[in-house]
Amino acid sequence: MGQHEASEYSTKGAYVHGGEEFNRDTNYIEDRIVADPAAVRTLPAPPASKVGSLGFGLTPGAQAWPVEAGRYRLVAARACPWANRTVIVRRLLGLEDAISLGQPGPVHDVRSWTFDLDEGGKDPVLGTERLQENYFKRFPDYPRGITVPAIVDIPSGGVVTNNYPQITLDFSTQWKEFHREGAPNLLPEGELDEMWPVMTRVFTEVNNGVYRAGFAGSQEAYDAAYARLWDAMDWLEERLATRRYLMGPTITEADVRLFTTLARFDAVYHGHFKTNRNKLAEMDNLWGYARDLFQTPGFGDTIDFVQIKDHYYKVHEDINPTRIVPVGPDLSNWLDDHDRAKLGGAPFGDGTAPEPVRASERVAAGHNPLYPA
Amino acid sequence: MGQHEASEYSTKGAYVHGGEEFNRDTNYIEDRIVADPAAVRTLPAPPASKVGSLGFGLTPGAQAWPVEAGRYRLVAARACPWANRTVIVRRLLGLEDAISLGQPGPVHDVRSWTFDLDEGGKDPVLGTERLQENYFKRFPDYPRGITVPAIVDIPSGGVVTNNYPQITLDFSTQWKEFHREGAPNLLPEGELDEMWPVMTRVFTEVNNGVYRAGFAGSQEAYDAAYARLWDAMDWLEERLATRRYLMGPTITEADVRLFTTLARFDAVYHGHFKTNRNKLAEMDNLWGYARDLFQTPGFGDTIDFVQIKDHYYKVHEDINPTRIVPVGPDLSNWLDDHDRAKLGGAPFGDGTAPEPVRASERVAAGHNPLYPA
Repeated sequence: MGQHEASEYSTKGAYVHGGEEFNRDTNYIEDRIVADPAAVRTLPAPPASKVGSLGFGLTPGAQAWPVEAGRYRLVAARACPWANRTVIVRRLLGLEDAISLGQPGPVHDVRSWTFDLDEGGKDPVLGTERLQENYFKRFPDYPRGITVPAIVDIPSGGVVTNNYPQITLDFSTQWKEFHREGAPNLLPEGELDEMWPVMTRVFTEVNNGVYRAGFAGSQEAYDAAYARLWDAMDWLEERLATRRYLMGPTITEADVRLFTTLARFDAVYHGHFKTNRNKLAEMDNLWGYARDLFQTPGFGDTIDFVQIKDHYYKVHEDINPTRIVPVGPDLSNWLDDHDRAKLGGAPFGDGTAPEPVRASERVAAGHNPLYPA
Repeated sequence: MGQHEASEYSTKGAYVHGGEEFNRDTNYIEDRIVADPAAVRTLPAPPASKVGSLGFGLTPGAQAWPVEAGRYRLVAARACPWANRTVIVRRLLGLEDAISLGQPGPVHDVRSWTFDLDEGGKDPVLGTERLQENYFKRFPDYPRGITVPAIVDIPSGGVVTNNYPQITLDFSTQWKEFHREGAPNLLPEGELDEMWPVMTRVFTEVNNGVYRAGFAGSQEAYDAAYARLWDAMDWLEERLATRRYLMGPTITEADVRLFTTLARFDAVYHGHFKTNRNKLAEMDNLWGYARDLFQTPGFGDTIDFVQIKDHYYKVHEDINPTRIVPVGPDLSNWLDDHDRAKLGGAPFGDGTAPEPVRASERVAAGHNPLYPA
C-alpha cells in the first residue's frame, strides 16, 4: 500500500510522530471485483479482519464489480511490499493477459505515487501522471492516502479498490476463469483454518512490525516494536525448521505475504528501520526459505532492489534527512544455494511454475542479481 | 578525538554539509609529554604526518612537558574510537598508576564532552563539569573542537595535548620508566618501515573512511567514500589471511588503531554511517582477527557498546534526527571462538598479558558481552 498515512498529506514526510507508536491507517476503498457480483451482494459482510476474508460479501457501502479480462489495470509500484504481493500472485496465477500492470516509480511525492518512469511521465494505458488523478476520478474529494496497490477501472479511469489484503484473495478465488494452466492453489481448503492466524501474525508482527520499529516516535515505542518483531522472527525461524514453506510442502498466500517483507529486510529494514538484531542472512531457516522463494519463478523475478532502496531512503526524509541511499548490502547472496529441498515438498503442488517474466515487465538489469547489469 | 570539527560549534549538530565531502579537522594542541624535554627540544620538527611520528621533536610552537607519574590525567570517553586507542595502549603498557583516567559520558553537547557520568557531574580529579573548561584553562580563547583524548595537567587543570596520533606513540616511547613488567613492544624497530604506510592507510581509508561515508554531503561523495572504504577492507581481509596480526605474529600499535574502528563497525558504522556492503561478521579474516583482539586482555575489556551506540546515534542528529538508538545488533558473537591461533604468533611477543581491568575502570555490566548484565 505504500507508506501513505492520511496524516502524511498534511505534513511533508512526517512518518515519525514524536512520542507516538506508529499506527497504520487500515481504511481502504473496499470494493471488490468478483466472478458473480449479484451473488456476492447477497453474502454477509466480512468480519473486521485486516488480512482479507473468504466466503463473505461486501463491507457496508462497498460495491461489487464484474471480473472482465482487459478491463482493469493493477497499479503496483515495484518498491512497495504491499503492492509486491499483488504482482507475485498475478504472476503465479498467470493473470498477466487478463489484468494489465501499471508501475509508478519508487520516489513518490507528498501527494501521490507518480508514473515518472513511463514515457512522457504518464501511464501508457491510464494516461495519468499521478495515481491521485485516478483516485479523484472515483472520489473527487478523496481524503485518504494515495496508496498502491490500486486496481483502476480503465474505461472510467477511477480506482475500484486499494484494499490490498482482499485483492490477492480475489485474484485466487474470483479470477479462476483466467488462471493459467498449472496455476497453484494458494488458498488450499484444508489449510485455511491454520493459515488465517499465521497470516494475521505475519501481518501485525512482521509486515507491519518493521514499520512499527522504523516509524516509532520514541525510544520506548521502538524498543517495544523491536521486541515484538524479533519474537515473531524467532517463531518463524522455528516454524521453518521443519516446513519447507510456511504452511507445509507447497507455496500458499501466506508465503507471498511473508516473502515481500523478507526481500526488503537486509536491503532496507535492517538499517533504515533499525530492525538490526541480525540480518536475515544470519538466520539459517528464514534465510534459506527466503532464498528458496526468491529463486522460484514468480517471486525473485518481481523484486527491484534499486527501486526498493530508492523508495525508502529517499521518501522517508524524517528518518534519513540526507536522502543518501546506501550502496550496500551486497545482494548477490540471494542466488546462493539453499538447502531447503531436503525438506521435500513441491513449490506449486500439482501445478507448475509460471513462464519467465514477459519482457515488458522484466526488472531492469542490475536491479536484481537474477538480471546482472 | 570525537566527532568535533571546528564548524560544529557554529551550527548545532551539523556533521553533514550538503554537497560536500567530509573533511576531518586535523589541527591539534601538539604539545608532548616526554622523558627528556631538553633533548626533545633540540630535535627537528616532525614531518607533516597525521599518524604521529617517532624520532622527531616538537611542531613549531608546541611545548615539551616532563613525564611524571600522577601529574597527568587522560580524558578519554569510552564512546570515541580515537580516545579508545589511548585507553588500550595505557592498559597494555600498564600505565594505569602513572596516568589516571577521566571518562566523559557518551552524549556530549554542542560545546563539549561532559563529565555527566561522574558523581555530581564533575570529574573527581579535575573538578570540572565540561572538558571545555580544561581547554579554556590552557587557552582562554580556544577556538577549535573540544576533543578526546585529551591529556590534562592536573595541577594547572589545563589541556597539555589532544594530539591523538602522537599520544599513544609517546606512551610507548617516553613513558618506558613506568611500563609494567611484561609490557609488549607496540613499536618494534624492525617493523616500523612497514608500519607507517599501513597505519596511514588504515587511518585515511578505515578509521576516517567510515566518517567520510557517514558524513558525506551528497550521494556522489558517499558513493566515493564507500568505494574507498571497501577497497581498504578488502586489502585488510587479504592481508590478515596469512598474518595473525596486522604486522605479523605480535600485536603492534597498528592493531590498536585498526581495532577501535572494527569494534564499532557492526554496532554503529554499518547502519548509522551506511558502510553496509556487509557486516564485519561476514568477513572471515577480519572478523576472526577482530574477535581475537577483542578476547585479548587490553582490547575487548575497554569497549562499552552501550556508550558507543548512544554516542553516535544521539549526537549526530542530522543523520539520525529521531535520536533513537537501535537495540541490535546482537553482540554476543564477539565471544565466539576464533580460529586465529592456527596462524601462530604470540599476542604480546616476549611480554605478557595485562592483569584484569581494575574495578574502578571496568566497563559496566551489560555493556559488553565480557561483562554480562
